Amino acid sequence: MVKAGIIGATGYAGAELVRILLGHKDVEIRWYGSRSYIDEKYAKVYGNMFQLVEDCCLDDNLEALAKQVDVVFTATPQGFLAGALTEGILQNAKVVDLSADFRLKDVGVYESWYKIQHKSPQFLEEAVYGLCEVNREKVKGARLVANPGCYTTCSILTAYPLVKEGLIDPNTLIVDAKSGTSGAGRGAKLPNLFCEVNENIKAYGVASHRHTPEIEEQLGYAAGQQVAINFTPHLVPMNRGILATEYASLRKVEQGDGSLAFPTEEQVRAVYGKYYGGEYFIRLLEPGVCPETKWVEGSNFVDIGFQIDQRTGRIIMMGAIDNLVKGAAGQAVQNMNLLFGLPENEGLQLVPMFP
Amino acid sequence: MVKAGIIGATGYAGAELVRILLGHKDVEIRWYGSRSYIDEKYAKVYGNMFQLVEDCCLDDNLEALAKQVDVVFTATPQGFLAGALTEGILQNAKVVDLSADFRLKDVGVYESWYKIQHKSPQFLEEAVYGLCEVNREKVKGARLVANPGCYTTCSILTAYPLVKEGLIDPNTLIVDAKSGTSGAGRGAKLPNLFCEVNENIKAYGVASHRHTPEIEEQLGYAAGQQVAINFTPHLVPMNRGILATEYASLRKVEQGDGSLAFPTEEQVRAVYGKYYGGEYFIRLLEPGVCPETKWVEGSNFVDIGFQIDQRTGRIIMMGAIDNLVKGAAGQAVQNMNLLFGLPENEGLQLVPMFP
Amino acid sequence: MVKAGIIGATGYAGAELVRILLGHKDVEIRWYGSRSYIDEKYAKVYGNMFQLVEDCCLDDNLEALAKQVDVVFTATPQGFLAGALTEGILQNAKVVDLSADFRLKDVGVYESWYKIQHKSPQFLEEAVYGLCEVNREKVKGARLVANPGCYTTCSILTAYPLVKEGLIDPNTLIVDAKSGTSGAGRGAKLPNLFCEVNENIKAYGVASHRHTPEIEEQLGYAAGQQVAINFTPHLVPMNRGILATEYASLRKVEQGDGSLAFPTEEQVRAVYGKYYGGEYFIRLLEPGVCPETKWVEGSNFVDIGFQIDQRTGRIIMMGAIDNLVKGAAGQAVQNMNLLFGLPENEGLQLVPMFP
Amino acid sequence: MVKAGIIGATGYAGAELVRILLGHKDVEIRWYGSRSYIDEKYAKVYGNMFQLVEDCCLDDNLEALAKQVDVVFTATPQGFLAGALTEGILQNAKVVDLSADFRLKDVGVYESWYKIQHKSPQFLEEAVYGLCEVNREKVKGARLVANPGCYTTCSILTAYPLVKEGLIDPNTLIVDAKSGTSGAGRGAKLPNLFCEVNENIKAYGVASHRHTPEIEEQLGYAAGQQVAINFTPHLVPMNRGILATEYASLRKVEQGDGSLAFPTEEQVRAVYGKYYGGEYFIRLLEPGVCPETKWVEGSNFVDIGFQIDQRTGRIIMMGAIDNLVKGAAGQAVQNMNLLFGLPENEGLQLVPMFP
Repeated sequence: MVKAGIIGATGYAGAELVRILLGHKDVEIRWYGSRSYIDEKYAKVYGNMFQLVEDCCLDDNLEALAKQVDVVFTATPQGFLAGALTEGILQNAKVVDLSADFRLKDVGVYESWYKIQHKSPQFLEEAVYGLCEVNREKVKGARLVANPGCYTTCSILTAYPLVKEGLIDPNTLIVDAKSGTSGAGRGAKLPNLFCEVNENIKAYGVASHRHTPEIEEQLGYAAGQQVAINFTPHLVPMNRGILATEYASLRKVEQGDGSLAFPTEEQVRAVYGKYYGGEYFIRLLEPGVCPETKWVEGSNFVDIGFQIDQRTGRIIMMGAIDNLVKGAAGQAVQNMNLLFGLPENEGLQLVPMFP
Repeated sequence: MVKAGIIGATGYAGAELVRILLGHKDVEIRWYGSRSYIDEKYAKVYGNMFQLVEDCCLDDNLEALAKQVDVVFTATPQGFLAGALTEGILQNAKVVDLSADFRLKDVGVYESWYKIQHKSPQFLEEAVYGLCEVNREKVKGARLVANPGCYTTCSILTAYPLVKEGLIDPNTLIVDAKSGTSGAGRGAKLPNLFCEVNENIKAYGVASHRHTPEIEEQLGYAAGQQVAINFTPHLVPMNRGILATEYASLRKVEQGDGSLAFPTEEQVRAVYGKYYGGEYFIRLLEPGVCPETKWVEGSNFVDIGFQIDQRTGRIIMMGAIDNLVKGAAGQAVQNMNLLFGLPENEGLQLVPMFP
Repeated sequence: MVKAGIIGATGYAGAELVRILLGHKDVEIRWYGSRSYIDEKYAKVYGNMFQLVEDCCLDDNLEALAKQVDVVFTATPQGFLAGALTEGILQNAKVVDLSADFRLKDVGVYESWYKIQHKSPQFLEEAVYGLCEVNREKVKGARLVANPGCYTTCSILTAYPLVKEGLIDPNTLIVDAKSGTSGAGRGAKLPNLFCEVNENIKAYGVASHRHTPEIEEQLGYAAGQQVAINFTPHLVPMNRGILATEYASLRKVEQGDGSLAFPTEEQVRAVYGKYYGGEYFIRLLEPGVCPETKWVEGSNFVDIGFQIDQRTGRIIMMGAIDNLVKGAAGQAVQNMNLLFGLPENEGLQLVPMFP
Repeated sequence: MVKAGIIGATGYAGAELVRILLGHKDVEIRWYGSRSYIDEKYAKVYGNMFQLVEDCCLDDNLEALAKQVDVVFTATPQGFLAGALTEGILQNAKVVDLSADFRLKDVGVYESWYKIQHKSPQFLEEAVYGLCEVNREKVKGARLVANPGCYTTCSILTAYPLVKEGLIDPNTLIVDAKSGTSGAGRGAKLPNLFCEVNENIKAYGVASHRHTPEIEEQLGYAAGQQVAINFTPHLVPMNRGILATEYASLRKVEQGDGSLAFPTEEQVRAVYGKYYGGEYFIRLLEPGVCPETKWVEGSNFVDIGFQIDQRTGRIIMMGAIDNLVKGAAGQAVQNMNLLFGLPENEGLQLVPMFP
């Protein structure tokens, strides 16, 4: 039985961790950390947990926690883990960090996009970027896993095989992403009020959203070159779900007869199959089918579809995830499974809920 | 391994049965019946099931089906099962009917509220009303279970102990119920279009909704007398969930000092505890807490709260369920568990999803 | 040209006042009061007003304001106006108060339900309760109008004629009301976040909501006796709209043949017609039609329908309004029109928006 | 008084025409055409119109109608007007067509994208594309106005000045558009049911949507060259609103010092100002502000914002409209005002409703 502690258990991502881990047969939650609700019953903060969780919330004491558990999940604001992490903690417990603190290798990039100083850059090198389908083997041996961001998970996985195989020019990539409102967290802020979000859609963080460098870094590794993209997030009046619609110029590839032409539907499909054919959580949809966020709700799946536009020489790739599951808590558990040698989908065989 | 068949697998209740049974370790779905989608892949009808269900839809052949499975779920329009049921079918398989065909004992009441002739009244007597928390022992030995309606499950369970113990006058009962739109089914009808339902609330079926006699019959058994109530359903712009707000006049009860007075909060709580104290799926909320449908979403729970109004001598009882789970598919599986001697909550330990 | 000032112009009700008054040909807004946004452009607070309102927000200086305008609207928290009102102010300008400060005649009732001390009870007697359809003549001559609450406007108007004419027993009245979320205001509070409200419905303030005594007082005047009712508000995942579903026991009335019986559909309809036949803003729906909040959205209409249940001897009355219009700003403008001798529906001939 | 007839008055666009024209002081609706509801009261089809419209629906008789009115609005399926239009009709009344029949000048393009034969190509040349801000003078003298599509209105106006002035390369244009569900019409189709749309977002018609050639034709005129773009529509769980997020590569322009560089924020702003500075319905938002569909709801405004990304050399333009107003009925009335010499914003000074 893996003993787990959660720091930030009363945010939406933390609460989703609780939901998933309660159904994980090999895990026991030992610590519901929440600075805002210390000593309050967890089930008072989340009424859905009434009679399912009897524990009270505890303080965010990472040192103490690491000694009592096998794995710590930090679902905390940027800067928290970087400010609290020590070698001692990592010797006592594995850490899966849902914040951005250890996702970017370059501390300068982190500091310029997040506008805060990084307090423990010495752990950046050993941190493994926990995008399981890409970095599976590295995760297995890690002590510190940087769980990817919600937008980034969706954006990267949707384009990754085509970037890796050079079918698209990565510098033409435009990611137009749409997210449900749970991605904005549970903070009591005016723009997240029901009446402000409902019956409304808007872009935000245009050309400045912090997930941009994360996508660029990872796709840069795949492309073998530095990559600059456009990423535009939008707020959608729904609780959960991210849809990324991605545009890129196709590169001509050699065809059977030696000529150069844009890749065909089958060629693109084959490339996706090469990388994702054996992946439980990635579902490449049938030709002509566009992913819908509702089809993955509550599950750890990534649904991917695409359409080639011969008129413009571009491909439109579309990926859908549940931002709280594959985009946060589900992927964190997937990483935990890898860390402890459990089947990768243990506790994550969640059937999407529809409607 | 219990072999199960579903007739009406492509309605919302049928689809929820599929979702739940896919996670039930002792059940295997052998038949996805759907008259509208014969020979089409089930996962084309419900994109969430892509790669989880590979089967195609089959015709509604109840006779053939009963020979291949241990249990048949009929999630069909009123009249279907009554028109198709035979003794032979019941000898081959257990039947859990999610329609109203066998819920009312009095065929005249059925015909007058449903405006159709009942084609097999001979099975009415043996049919067991599958409200597990009330009829558990009878269900265990049944061949034919009439799975309660969504509104009725919520309405009855919320008031049942107080009616049974005589704390309220059952003829003063007013049930004001609010339902998510999945209760209206997947039929392509104008009033269920997004733009008609969204940003809107309305009552419907006022003083004429078909769940009224079902509530009255069951509460009549509890009260030991005939009961007439008011029941008003409302359509709410959300996918899932039923909230029943119920009003009734309290009866004065003898107090410790021999005087007569309205029951106290503690006395009411004790009565609920007497009936539901050991029930896994019924959660009596703490004093002052009102149930929210979101807290039970995706789960088989019934959340109940209440408030006594000394000024008017009435009690306000509130109950919340997920209409597709405890109000349909979840309760059907609960009944199936009872029929086959499985733990009653097997496959139903679903943690509510929030948000 | 009536010169108007608004205190609390950046709340939802204040903003709706702005929307309506911008379309009122006889009114000019001179003061956008907002303690929270002093000196900020109003259109920065409400993006919909961009290029329509060029003014900046001003402080809540009631004394100064009253000297510059003909009418002051106070869309402020409870207690504000009671703490600021003076005889001098009332000599300079008419005041239409959208808060509860002057709605209840009995200061004790006010203080016990609102839990604050009333700072200027000396104005309670002269304040006119601005339910125009009931108090039209009194409003015309008033200096201080207490604009009714949103729930109360809907609850009272829906039942008023039947109470007034004695067709129902007022002490059996149960009001089950459902409101869109704008009724909760624009405060950044966790329970009003999109993810907490969306896909959810709950009751709140059960047996304790502050609109209860207001309904009781007004219906008491109509009944000529003290009245105690049950009122239960619910939060619905939509922006605007209130639906009140009201239950009451019918009283038997003398029929044409001298016998006593419950009133017929026609008799009830005639009573509604007697009071509302000439009312522009009240629409008595055709037999069998239930009101829908969407049908009044953006307008000052009150839609009313009813159903008699002969089985239980009760009538179910249903009323729908837009909580921000007839339930707040629209009624305030209707009162203003009466105060200044303008046509009562001037600026209020708003066609409901659908969908 | 302009006498108007509407063919297709019971679709959402037709109903919005009714809403707007009821508030237009110079127009009188004489004909509510609706093939599906002949002889039924219009207010039965749209409950919001109760007591506001007393007329019954009439058949779709264009010949008869044209003799009785000054202007006919056709809010009908593709092919209807092309199949019914005659010279005689145009001699009797002006026609504003909300369908696509006369939007594309090239009949071959029409037939290949719409998959139907065009029955009256002889009127294509005289038809004026009714994008008022671009074609104002031509509209004034027209007999037949092709009212632009909802997506196209938003997509074109958002990019038009930059294309016209050569600031962007039009062939790099990518339009990622998001629409509320009223754009899908009032047809009772499964994909438009509440439970299918709510809590969901998806792309559709990828690389094949019929508004693509319309955008390309109009931007082609502006660019003075043939243009091929990518256009991807998405379905958003809200009633109204379109947001177009548009991406294009900037062209370097000569700066003050003679060097070539990407245009600055100010330079782009100046170009927008040159074309839209005097336009009542186009609101160029302040620097850094992103449009929100809620800010234009119920109004005829187009809100436009933009952001330059120096890193990638692209500009992100964003436009928001209410799809039923500026995207359909509002623009149709704007065209009608031009046709009859009325002030262009008569009846269209609609203040956006928030929330």
